[in-house]
Amino acid sequence: MSFTPLSKWRLFHIAKAGCVVAALGVTLAGNSFADDHPSVKRTIAEQFIHDMQEGKIAEAGAEDHVVQELIIKRSIPITYKYINILMNTPNAFGPGVACTVCHNSQDASKSYRGLDLSTCKGMIEGTTEKPKHTVFTPGVDPKRDHLIRRLRNNRMPLGLGFENSTYTPSHMLVKNWIAEGAKNDDHFTKNVLPLFSTANAFGPNTPACTACHMSNQEPPSFHELNLSTHAGIMLGADSVAKGVDKSTKVIVPGKPELSFVWQHLAEDRMPPGISPAEARDHPNTTILSAWIKQGAKCD
Amino acid sequence: MSFTPLSKWRLFHIAKAGCVVAALGVTLAGNSFADDHPSVKRTIAEQFIHDMQEGKIAEAGAEDHVVQELIIKRSIPITYKYINILMNTPNAFGPGVACTVCHNSQDASKSYRGLDLSTCKGMIEGTTEKPKHTVFTPGVDPKRDHLIRRLRNNRMPLGLGFENSTYTPSHMLVKNWIAEGAKNDDHFTKNVLPLFSTANAFGPNTPACTACHMSNQEPPSFHELNLSTHAGIMLGADSVAKGVDKSTKVIVPGKPELSFVWQHLAEDRMPPGISPAEARDHPNTTILSAWIKQGAKCD
Amino acid sequence: MSFTPLSKWRLFHIAKAGCVVAALGVTLAGNSFADDHPSVKRTIAEQFIHDMQEGKIAEAGAEDHVVQELIIKRSIPITYKYINILMNTPNAFGPGVACTVCHNSQDASKSYRGLDLSTCKGMIEGTTEKPKHTVFTPGVDPKRDHLIRRLRNNRMPLGLGFENSTYTPSHMLVKNWIAEGAKNDDHFTKNVLPLFSTANAFGPNTPACTACHMSNQEPPSFHELNLSTHAGIMLGADSVAKGVDKSTKVIVPGKPELSFVWQHLAEDRMPPGISPAEARDHPNTTILSAWIKQGAKCD
Repeated sequence: MSFTPLSKWRLFHIAKAGCVVAALGVTLAGNSFADDHPSVKRTIAEQFIHDMQEGKIAEAGAEDHVVQELIIKRSIPITYKYINILMNTPNAFGPGVACTVCHNSQDASKSYRGLDLSTCKGMIEGTTEKPKHTVFTPGVDPKRDHLIRRLRNNRMPLGLGFENSTYTPSHMLVKNWIAEGAKNDDHFTKNVLPLFSTANAFGPNTPACTACHMSNQEPPSFHELNLSTHAGIMLGADSVAKGVDKSTKVIVPGKPELSFVWQHLAEDRMPPGISPAEARDHPNTTILSAWIKQGAKCD
Repeated sequence: MSFTPLSKWRLFHIAKAGCVVAALGVTLAGNSFADDHPSVKRTIAEQFIHDMQEGKIAEAGAEDHVVQELIIKRSIPITYKYINILMNTPNAFGPGVACTVCHNSQDASKSYRGLDLSTCKGMIEGTTEKPKHTVFTPGVDPKRDHLIRRLRNNRMPLGLGFENSTYTPSHMLVKNWIAEGAKNDDHFTKNVLPLFSTANAFGPNTPACTACHMSNQEPPSFHELNLSTHAGIMLGADSVAKGVDKSTKVIVPGKPELSFVWQHLAEDRMPPGISPAEARDHPNTTILSAWIKQGAKCD
Repeated sequence: MSFTPLSKWRLFHIAKAGCVVAALGVTLAGNSFADDHPSVKRTIAEQFIHDMQEGKIAEAGAEDHVVQELIIKRSIPITYKYINILMNTPNAFGPGVACTVCHNSQDASKSYRGLDLSTCKGMIEGTTEKPKHTVFTPGVDPKRDHLIRRLRNNRMPLGLGFENSTYTPSHMLVKNWIAEGAKNDDHFTKNVLPLFSTANAFGPNTPACTACHMSNQEPPSFHELNLSTHAGIMLGADSVAKGVDKSTKVIVPGKPELSFVWQHLAEDRMPPGISPAEARDHPNTTILSAWIKQGAKCD
């Protein structure tokens, strides 16, 4: 009496074809706890039921929708114990080896960057190899910080793996241009700007940056980002959605490491080898972010 | 000399095309241990070899076939240590976050239902939020109990996610009808019965219940269940396979919580967000069930 | 502003179509640490950057490419802690239950072969059931030893699962022929050799061995292995690539257990139930091998 693959397919076919809205003139027998005890603090289960009745549960969409609705919106405390499991478990953030295979000690001769993700202390202290830096700040949204952006941001141009150098002449030209102030001068016009509109400029079998980032209109330009002119690059992303004054700057003159353009050209997404087609908002990445925002507590 | 994807495909193509049965007139050189020492208790490896020789290993079929043949049939003791790993590991029962992200304490203000799946004691005690209840009984087949049925049973109609309310007017009409005795009266005929034969009655883009449960014959009616008449609903499932007297009742008059119809309408499968297309008999669900049947020992 | 599935597809389509190589006549601003401090030992991060600049990072290929380049080539110490996680985690080596479900004690009445993979000591001691044997030797490449070959080697003919007997008359004929010296006599010619060229000789719905291993030329013959004549069988695999003197012997006369032909006919790949289409060089298998080669240290 179990479902066969065929019957399973049939069920879904039927489900997709559902078309007639049931227009039933009936009244709702209300759930009563919250109404009867307005002064009693709801449990998270009661709060979820209440939100469901009030129509406050968002429709499914992003990969991390479940985590957003059931965990993040309800401020469930994330335990370090679960974070430690995530650091030690293969495939926790998409297909790949566990973080702690390569980052398990503060000794930079055997652990990349001297970053120890196997202990709470190590996570909080960050890299010990120069340049030493933290990988997040407890209590602060870590979206742009090292730990989370390395799990979320795909290296550009899409398709380049960690085995492709980030030290090509093209990379160095962009890095140095930012480091020297990101000026709109002859050197930029002649040597740097063309890189963004040339296929394979930053590695083999890749499109030009401007194939996807060509104007301030999305679609077709991703993130409303225009990499075809100096003005467009300096304006940054999402200038229509957020307004020109609040657009997301992608260049910080003098600071390549803080510039999103450079980060995207130079940083490989983790775990190494993961396909850029894997969801960026992985449920466990969202949980890791929540733990950091909640203060990155170790107990 | 390694396999290329193409050559791998070729190998399988060849394998699928195998067609001539080898009719070889040879004699079998018997495996001797079991025969030579009939009074010695076999190890599980010896028993497996014996069963293989006797033709007692079933053909592959269900997703949990490996577990059934190698573990369950041989009564290998399941350790709590492995159960604890399953509770704490993402994707253990199909794609999704670990159970303990949401169920890790008996404090119902931060753990759903006050259910603590992070300790053996917590698993055995069950929910602490009212209505308090265990989620399984050690030593008893847990198929219908909360823990296992939440991992196995797809919410109906198929396609509804946890973000779809289980407190719609339609849901309340069914629940109250069962609570009030599941009578075959005018209210039922006019207000409840039509819900089962109406698309989208319990949520958007869903088929009518009777699209799949329309008679006592399977196929086409899943589980030989007929939800198109009061008599059919009360008769229940598998009345042909098991006989009318032993059919599986899907309504317990007065007790919606014990009625399979209500459970299927109101309970989301875990982990939240899992697709109903994922195998219901996941190997780790079978192992979890076996641990419970073996007594749910904590050491 | 997030990527939609459609736009993601578009991006990849564009990436695949990249075609013009950027011929930029620019000079490289060199990374300076290694050059400035030639006598200072590099950290692994510095060494990786150096290798990248020198073009020493191999192109992506095998499933375990990431592990090979970032971990194995750089001799990162693998901790027993991670190995223990792999032994205890479902899906660590491809879809399947954890190793320790079936191999978690030295008591052969409840743990297959009395093999305890839940402790470092148990891993090193190997099976306790007769015939007792280790499953690897610390410090030695384990590719042909039990633990790794059971994770890598697909049972032949491809397509046979653990539920298919390895004690058929055909299997016994091959085993006994090897045990008795693998002679080229009338019994071999009449009763054994034909098995290799007959479909379904070793199980249902399988091709003849010679469908894939028919000559010393690859392609079309996998591993340059010819199972159609006594001379070919005794010559072994890869006789062209390695030379006739160094070919890989697949028969050890008198020792079926050491003969690759018998191992492939008799041993199921682990975890049980895994598809032969799953990558044989799983990243975690490579890590497990590296831990063994590094000495299988327990602390």
